[in-house]
Amino acid sequence: MNVILIEAHELTDDGTAVLTDRRAEHIRKILRARPGDRLRVGLLGGLLGSGELLSLTPLRLRCVFDQPPPARPRIHLLLGMPRPITLKRLLRQAAELGLESIELLRTARTEKSYFDSPVLGKLEQYTRQGLEQAGGTRLPSIGVSLRFRPFVEDVLPGRIAANDRALLAVVGAGKPLKSLELAGSQDLHLAIGPDGGWLPFEAELLAQAGFEGVSLGPRVFRTDTALTWAVAQLVCCRRQHPKIAKE
Amino acid sequence: MNVILIEAHELTDDGTAVLTDRRAEHIRKILRARPGDRLRVGLLGGLLGSGELLSLTPLRLRCVFDQPPPARPRIHLLLGMPRPITLKRLLRQAAELGLESIELLRTARTEKSYFDSPVLGKLEQYTRQGLEQAGGTRLPSIGVSLRFRPFVEDVLPGRIAANDRALLAVVGAGKPLKSLELAGSQDLHLAIGPDGGWLPFEAELLAQAGFEGVSLGPRVFRTDTALTWAVAQLVCCRRQHPKIAKE
Repeated sequence: MNVILIEAHELTDDGTAVLTDRRAEHIRKILRARPGDRLRVGLLGGLLGSGELLSLTPLRLRCVFDQPPPARPRIHLLLGMPRPITLKRLLRQAAELGLESIELLRTARTEKSYFDSPVLGKLEQYTRQGLEQAGGTRLPSIGVSLRFRPFVEDVLPGRIAANDRALLAVVGAGKPLKSLELAGSQDLHLAIGPDGGWLPFEAELLAQAGFEGVSLGPRVFRTDTALTWAVAQLVCCRRQHPKIAKE
Repeated sequence: MNVILIEAHELTDDGTAVLTDRRAEHIRKILRARPGDRLRVGLLGGLLGSGELLSLTPLRLRCVFDQPPPARPRIHLLLGMPRPITLKRLLRQAAELGLESIELLRTARTEKSYFDSPVLGKLEQYTRQGLEQAGGTRLPSIGVSLRFRPFVEDVLPGRIAANDRALLAVVGAGKPLKSLELAGSQDLHLAIGPDGGWLPFEAELLAQAGFEGVSLGPRVFRTDTALTWAVAQLVCCRRQHPKIAKE
């Protein structure tokens, strides 16, 4: 937990919060903080700041929120619904990477039982863990779509602005993702398939919705490796190249 | 398992292997292959190819190895020894990413008990799983160093060639890793700290050994996210920019 996240409704007028849950446990047992210590805090959905530990029992923190949270890479994730154990990790990771949103999409290769998983009842819990790790404050929004075609044909186009870029991650042949040249101002939409990949008709519908295939390289990555890999390279593709450009 | 890995000593003169372990189980139960089917195979340390399933019981595959494995990014990892559960994941992941080598280094923040973990007796098992996922054939070499200073001062310099580039991943301020310009011909050495990071004297010794600090960005990543993130961006930094260069 690299930041203690606090919600606005937990704060009194003078910025004090009384914590009783696993955050209090973490401050006492892991950080072993003492009254007077200052801890890194974040207002969920808002700024970062510091919290002075006023007392351990009850655990009271007086917070000042005055620093901007880390910039986010402005990436929206469209994810073929993975098995629950993978989903848990991906939710944490998406928040850790600072993604804007996650749409969990039922695909032909998604087992129906995945949507009965208790993980779906704890979406905020897992994404919060990702923020606590990374030091972010903004939870990604999360959607669940059980019907592939209506979502891709009717809902998705309304979410992709004219200036956005939509990318479908593939393995092997295809334009390498790492060679894209991206404007810093573009929002990106990244589609990552379920285990085993998209079926051809699914990839075709996504192509019609404006998703261009880009290759992550010759290796077949697990979904979580693919997600981090793709986001890291997209951030890299957005960088400026002043030296090279001047030549 | 995206490739069935076979060792040279398992092959008869006509390229047939008899498999009895979890590979056989995988072929029967997950792939549900039938005699006559062709499966993707790889010779451990060698080429990829295809294997014709001759019979299910015993499970016999006749293999032809005739395709080059995916190119590797020529990255050597120096890792502050993580806790065993993280190590397990990182070993798989390092092989999945195609790294050349992994040096597990005891640091001031490493608990001594980590070196008693049974994971250290199964290094090859976990790295093989990474190859099976990614479709690679070459296991990374793995070293364990219990004494930080002698390793960094005496052993490490001998491993870093004059043309290589050695990088120490840090969070936050610092030269961004994503802005590096790397020649395709350079081998890279990447140092990633233990949970909680390197102590200042450790970072100092690594700097003396030629490691330059590079920032992964403003977010504090878990070790496994940091590893994939760094490798993905290094691969991206090596790309050619013909369009930009011509301007």
